[in-house]
Amino acid sequence: METGQIRLNKVTGEWVIYAPSRRRRPQDFQQNDRNNSSVNHSQKNCPFCSQKNEKFEKILLEIKGCQQDLWQTRVVENKFPALNFHENPQRNFEGIYMTMSGYGHHEVVIESPDHQQTIATLSISEIEAIIETYHQRYLKLMEDKEIMMVIIFRNHGKGAGASLRHPHSQIIASSIVPSHRRIQEAEAQRYFDHWARCVYCDILKFEINEKVRVILENKLFVSFVPFAAEFPCEIWIMPKQHQADFGSITAEEKTAFATILKESLSRLYYKLNNPDYNYVINTAARYKAEEPQLHWYCQIRPRLTTPAGFELGSGISINPSIPEVDAAFLRD
Amino acid sequence: METGQIRLNKVTGEWVIYAPSRRRRPQDFQQNDRNNSSVNHSQKNCPFCSQKNEKFEKILLEIKGCQQDLWQTRVVENKFPALNFHENPQRNFEGIYMTMSGYGHHEVVIESPDHQQTIATLSISEIEAIIETYHQRYLKLMEDKEIMMVIIFRNHGKGAGASLRHPHSQIIASSIVPSHRRIQEAEAQRYFDHWARCVYCDILKFEINEKVRVILENKLFVSFVPFAAEFPCEIWIMPKQHQADFGSITAEEKTAFATILKESLSRLYYKLNNPDYNYVINTAARYKAEEPQLHWYCQIRPRLTTPAGFELGSGISINPSIPEVDAAFLRD
Repeated sequence: METGQIRLNKVTGEWVIYAPSRRRRPQDFQQNDRNNSSVNHSQKNCPFCSQKNEKFEKILLEIKGCQQDLWQTRVVENKFPALNFHENPQRNFEGIYMTMSGYGHHEVVIESPDHQQTIATLSISEIEAIIETYHQRYLKLMEDKEIMMVIIFRNHGKGAGASLRHPHSQIIASSIVPSHRRIQEAEAQRYFDHWARCVYCDILKFEINEKVRVILENKLFVSFVPFAAEFPCEIWIMPKQHQADFGSITAEEKTAFATILKESLSRLYYKLNNPDYNYVINTAARYKAEEPQLHWYCQIRPRLTTPAGFELGSGISINPSIPEVDAAFLRD
Repeated sequence: METGQIRLNKVTGEWVIYAPSRRRRPQDFQQNDRNNSSVNHSQKNCPFCSQKNEKFEKILLEIKGCQQDLWQTRVVENKFPALNFHENPQRNFEGIYMTMSGYGHHEVVIESPDHQQTIATLSISEIEAIIETYHQRYLKLMEDKEIMMVIIFRNHGKGAGASLRHPHSQIIASSIVPSHRRIQEAEAQRYFDHWARCVYCDILKFEINEKVRVILENKLFVSFVPFAAEFPCEIWIMPKQHQADFGSITAEEKTAFATILKESLSRLYYKLNNPDYNYVINTAARYKAEEPQLHWYCQIRPRLTTPAGFELGSGISINPSIPEVDAAFLRD
């Protein structure tokens, strides 16, 4: 197995990616080695700091700042891609099992030339440039007809899986839609069949009215702690207008999204002393982009607790924090 | 909300437990406090070390060792239960959302009087006593007709969510069957509908024949790295005889399971320098206990990698290790 491979778990229906560029030997995981791994905080050898192009074979997108000679955001190929567009997209059988080649795209969005920043500390116009970058790459990746789903995500801090300090997010475009996502599609479909309404729009309306779980609201977006939050201080940011596909975001919405994203992450940053977190933009798969029952949203998950055996085995989370208390804490 | 509550996530169909005894304020999660939290290694104040009964209001089960005055395993109520049998089992509505009371049981299995041991270092007869303890409590908890599912699990080390060093496992009995579990039931049902065979039995037969992912095998059990392992050095231990329900385990199987569990965990312990791990016994829900398409197994997940934003958002895992390489490493 020299090329990448995606394997289907016959029992759960879920996929697992095995990427050659990320491969490690089992003995690499011995306790001592694990303790040595940490976030690369140093600016000295940071691959994302350079103002020149030489470190990257290809810059996929560059958005300029106010000073026209400086870049503000940059998109490059991930040096250790989980999926690779050089692979041939195809399915194979290995005895009773099914596999796929590791076809896809894996890009890095360098969010700022400044090593020390993070979204909570960038200006709104700088964050707008990041959203603009997401949007342009999203549309570009969807031009590849093999791609069914584009996942935009950010890992902040070691506990959230980040290995570099320099502010960046990642984009993975895949030709499979995982069972995890199809289950959510099916839940939304069932709700729509019963009520002829988008479940996300109904949640939004209910939350705006109830107020107790709302953190922030502007003309076009709401930021709130979901009713059944899995993690302490989990935040969902949702556009008020029904919109299944992140690709449909308007210019006005980009500004409003940048504003509420900055403010939401600032609340975490200042009130919880810069916690590790992940965020992901949950958006419809290609074939669901026009659906009346789906709605894109940004899900922010601070990594404040450790899921243990019960969570892994049951899929039920135990959240030690109450969503209404978290919302009040982040709101005030 | 003074009593416990389980909330349904309308979007994913999953449940989240909010238990009063585990409640923390959001400000408790500030970075400094987080760094202070660690495993209680000290024997001095260990609640599980005492040879006397006074620390626990009620000992639910005690298995004696060879020296008749000493206990070998003990089961007590969890001091910070996720679910509680004093609650009234009932469902409620909060606006558009559904909740349940936090009805259930949450017990701790103290696996040995010796603070310093772990399963990898206990004797086979001591581990047999642990399996016997699991089995007796499993059957006892199933006598409560409100209980639909019993989850037996173990958290080893801080990275796996353990807060106490003293060797112990936990049992949670719940009146809900999570969507996560029902999806696996449905996958197995679909396979059975097509092939009239248990998918787990087919996997077992294939793996025994292929050998490349098998770590250990005895007369009644196989220990192997699953074809689509989500984590490096993930291990499944499965009874060879078709058996949906852990409650059906025989005396002979208990010995064979204890033997292969010890040896599998010893391989992790010695070859990976005592890594953090979780294990869980995946067994059929009450109403599926006799089904021809389900099969119980013990799933061991070393915590060697950190799932990040992509995994959280897509449900797709990225495993840097190859199952066949892991199996060879653990086998030899």
